[in-house]
Amino acid sequence: MQQAAPNSAHLFVIFGVTGDLAERKLLPAFYHVTHREGCEGMSYLLGVGRRDWSDDEFRRRAKQTLTSSGLGPGELSSWCDEQVFFHGIDDYRSQESFVELRSRINQIEHDCALPQNRIYYLALPPEAFPAAVTALGENGLAHSAGYTRLVIEKPFGKDLETARRLDQVIHRYFGEDQVYRIDHYLGKTTVQNMLVFRFANGMFEPLWNRDRISRVELTVGEDLGVGTRGGYYDTAGALRDMVQNHILQLISLVAMEPPTAFEAESIRSEKVKVVRSITALRDEDVVLGQYGAGEINGQPVTGYLEEPKVAAESQTETYAALRLHVDTWRWHGIPFYVRTGKRLPRRTTKIAIVFREAPLPLFRAFQVRPPANVLVISIQPDEGFDLFFEVKTPDRSFRLDTKRLTFRYQDHFGRIPEAYETLIADVVGGDQTLFVHTEEVEASWRLLTPLLQHKPPVSEYRAGSWGPDEIYTLLPDWVDYCLAEPTQAAQRGKTVPGRENDRIT
Amino acid sequence: MQQAAPNSAHLFVIFGVTGDLAERKLLPAFYHVTHREGCEGMSYLLGVGRRDWSDDEFRRRAKQTLTSSGLGPGELSSWCDEQVFFHGIDDYRSQESFVELRSRINQIEHDCALPQNRIYYLALPPEAFPAAVTALGENGLAHSAGYTRLVIEKPFGKDLETARRLDQVIHRYFGEDQVYRIDHYLGKTTVQNMLVFRFANGMFEPLWNRDRISRVELTVGEDLGVGTRGGYYDTAGALRDMVQNHILQLISLVAMEPPTAFEAESIRSEKVKVVRSITALRDEDVVLGQYGAGEINGQPVTGYLEEPKVAAESQTETYAALRLHVDTWRWHGIPFYVRTGKRLPRRTTKIAIVFREAPLPLFRAFQVRPPANVLVISIQPDEGFDLFFEVKTPDRSFRLDTKRLTFRYQDHFGRIPEAYETLIADVVGGDQTLFVHTEEVEASWRLLTPLLQHKPPVSEYRAGSWGPDEIYTLLPDWVDYCLAEPTQAAQRGKTVPGRENDRIT
Repeated sequence: MQQAAPNSAHLFVIFGVTGDLAERKLLPAFYHVTHREGCEGMSYLLGVGRRDWSDDEFRRRAKQTLTSSGLGPGELSSWCDEQVFFHGIDDYRSQESFVELRSRINQIEHDCALPQNRIYYLALPPEAFPAAVTALGENGLAHSAGYTRLVIEKPFGKDLETARRLDQVIHRYFGEDQVYRIDHYLGKTTVQNMLVFRFANGMFEPLWNRDRISRVELTVGEDLGVGTRGGYYDTAGALRDMVQNHILQLISLVAMEPPTAFEAESIRSEKVKVVRSITALRDEDVVLGQYGAGEINGQPVTGYLEEPKVAAESQTETYAALRLHVDTWRWHGIPFYVRTGKRLPRRTTKIAIVFREAPLPLFRAFQVRPPANVLVISIQPDEGFDLFFEVKTPDRSFRLDTKRLTFRYQDHFGRIPEAYETLIADVVGGDQTLFVHTEEVEASWRLLTPLLQHKPPVSEYRAGSWGPDEIYTLLPDWVDYCLAEPTQAAQRGKTVPGRENDRIT
Repeated sequence: MQQAAPNSAHLFVIFGVTGDLAERKLLPAFYHVTHREGCEGMSYLLGVGRRDWSDDEFRRRAKQTLTSSGLGPGELSSWCDEQVFFHGIDDYRSQESFVELRSRINQIEHDCALPQNRIYYLALPPEAFPAAVTALGENGLAHSAGYTRLVIEKPFGKDLETARRLDQVIHRYFGEDQVYRIDHYLGKTTVQNMLVFRFANGMFEPLWNRDRISRVELTVGEDLGVGTRGGYYDTAGALRDMVQNHILQLISLVAMEPPTAFEAESIRSEKVKVVRSITALRDEDVVLGQYGAGEINGQPVTGYLEEPKVAAESQTETYAALRLHVDTWRWHGIPFYVRTGKRLPRRTTKIAIVFREAPLPLFRAFQVRPPANVLVISIQPDEGFDLFFEVKTPDRSFRLDTKRLTFRYQDHFGRIPEAYETLIADVVGGDQTLFVHTEEVEASWRLLTPLLQHKPPVSEYRAGSWGPDEIYTLLPDWVDYCLAEPTQAAQRGKTVPGRENDRIT
């Protein structure tokens, strides 16, 4: 996680630069990164796309994009005119196209006196990855006199077999230290905050184990449905779309041992150990669901099967709840409960660390059973944490009340940088911490592939609910720790009248 | 700490009812307690004083006192007229006076059909205690057909010898279960809050020991000087006035083992074990001070020797700093630092639990040394706690920032009842939890008496400072955890420019 200074000039090559991702996210992020203090003049951009644009045409569009994301026209103009280029390509599978591309790259590097530091960013559909990587490799573009780095976006395969095949192609030409697999879900700040929270605070780490924690609950909720992504999503589902990557990343950060140093190699090697330690998923540990029609924020919404581009009788899961066991010395016997889905009551990512309850005898005479303390790490929508603890009410009867202490990073530090900004800065700086190692990809697919091959039945759940009723067989008392008002926090653990298995949500 | 219901009628006898304490505190508190739900009509008051008042005269004054403390005249009037009496006494040392008093008590109990439940509250100067107790005992007033309870205020002696003599007198007539030694400093709510905080929250107790805590700091500061109490104070000093009682009580609550039940006997027996475990004080563990002239809140104030009724060359300490060792399995080797004094920068009572620092290696590359987490339990002026912890700043450099989570009972529960109110309710209810056991008195005097007999020299400190410079030989980095603004918390540990040994205060 060290910030190597991007101290020499480089050429950033975006494949698929005419697409939506490049326009909305990559261009502004790259511009911000390359115009940080100490980096001015170092960054050259070559956009590659299946269009017949001239450099000037692309520069004009780039200026437009960047201006509309709030940048002033001054320095923008000179950068775009002198350091931005476009190269049209016919087909990412054609060797000939890449011969031309190589010439173009050499030409730019020659004209601008660049030291052959190259970053290839594949903003392409996943099915184009193998051909593009092969073409780069076969045309001698995987190595140069400077550094050469390859950035690819998830999904990294769709099961163990396809992930391995992709990595075989990549590793035929690129070393793992050249590869940056982007999982943009976890920004650098979030990951660093989690690690600092755990390892820079002497009071938490002694509690962070099976002796002091009774369970971990992880909720990744989206209130949106599949929207326009039905075509892709229907072939993927929640396990591939969320669990294999984001959720296993979050669990790794929560469950990992302290790394020996705060840098990529140490952190990634501890994370992959967590994923490898998760025991095989049994049917009784899994509940899958698919949203039916329902209501979100009082508005009626349609069910998944009515969404555009979704197969009429699709059995794709839009929801997964899992009971995982991280079978390490630290966590043996402690369940990690996960639930994630679309069309849940709200957009939220929270990890609840439920501590063991205080022993009972002290309060027996009052028939008071102190609830467990809970630490809730909040990732979305606002990053921070909440600590739920017990105080005595000051009245004469002996009663406890659950209160919460709340910390939000944005209350103290303001806006946190865009995930893409920090990720691109890390690629330029050569820091692989936030990027997914091939071993992590393999371990996570190894865990999930058997489940994908023999999927349990998918139950319908009402849009706007927390999932199918079956999840209460996994854990009877799921709790929603998102409640906004501290006073309401006291209600956690109470059942909703009329629906005995459902907790206050 | 159970609340036995005050379910039968009783006679509350206040000795010294014409004094300041009775008027300001006892009368209003007693009225409130006896008019709680379920107690109406049960409470009779007999004021005893060295005045020649009639019942009516006392009733008139009592009504005036109670009305001016905000009570409505309605029910007040009927209570005062029917259940309040006065008895004039010539001399608390005269047996004859107590014969008359006994007749008066019998008469009231007969007229009002009371079951001889009697509570004697000695609101008298300490030198009158032995004579009054003896007179009660010798006149057969220490026992009755109902219950008889004796309430006395501190000081309980002025060293081991005098404390023992007082207890011998008391125990000649009263059983320890009849004796309620009031130390009004710790209200019931505070004590209960402390115990609930420690023992109802599963996450704190595992941290509460020498493995996880590096030191405990206790500050009891008063910004006032001795005021009109110079005559008494000059014969007492800070060790007798604060350390022997309040401070040892606080340390007991912080350091005690979990009691087997939440009731008086269990709690007091754990508390006394703490005091007994404190190792003998060595000269190098003690710094005494006496305030000179200085400034409080920008106003010049005079030194102690200029205060009224203070001896011209008094060596009485108005300040004490101590390093204590609670030599139990839990705390062996962990210093408890105490400082208390008059004319300090502000009125505050805080206990800082300083946890061990996180291990260094993880952050070595960034030359960052995470400060220790600190839990600050706040007793005065506002009850609650603060947790100081580390977060990463979101900028690209790797820096930590100390933030604080704050909880204040009054923000959640509003006004906390007056200490005297809960204490009197406990006497009426027969709950001794908050009252000091004879063994606690003896253990605390046993610890302090050698120090009182061979007092180290007393150094002058400037009024408005945190004490004599010598305290920095005890602990170089005293910290003031009272800082109001969370952002300033980040400055703890930094030195004040121009005064290297003084921390931000």
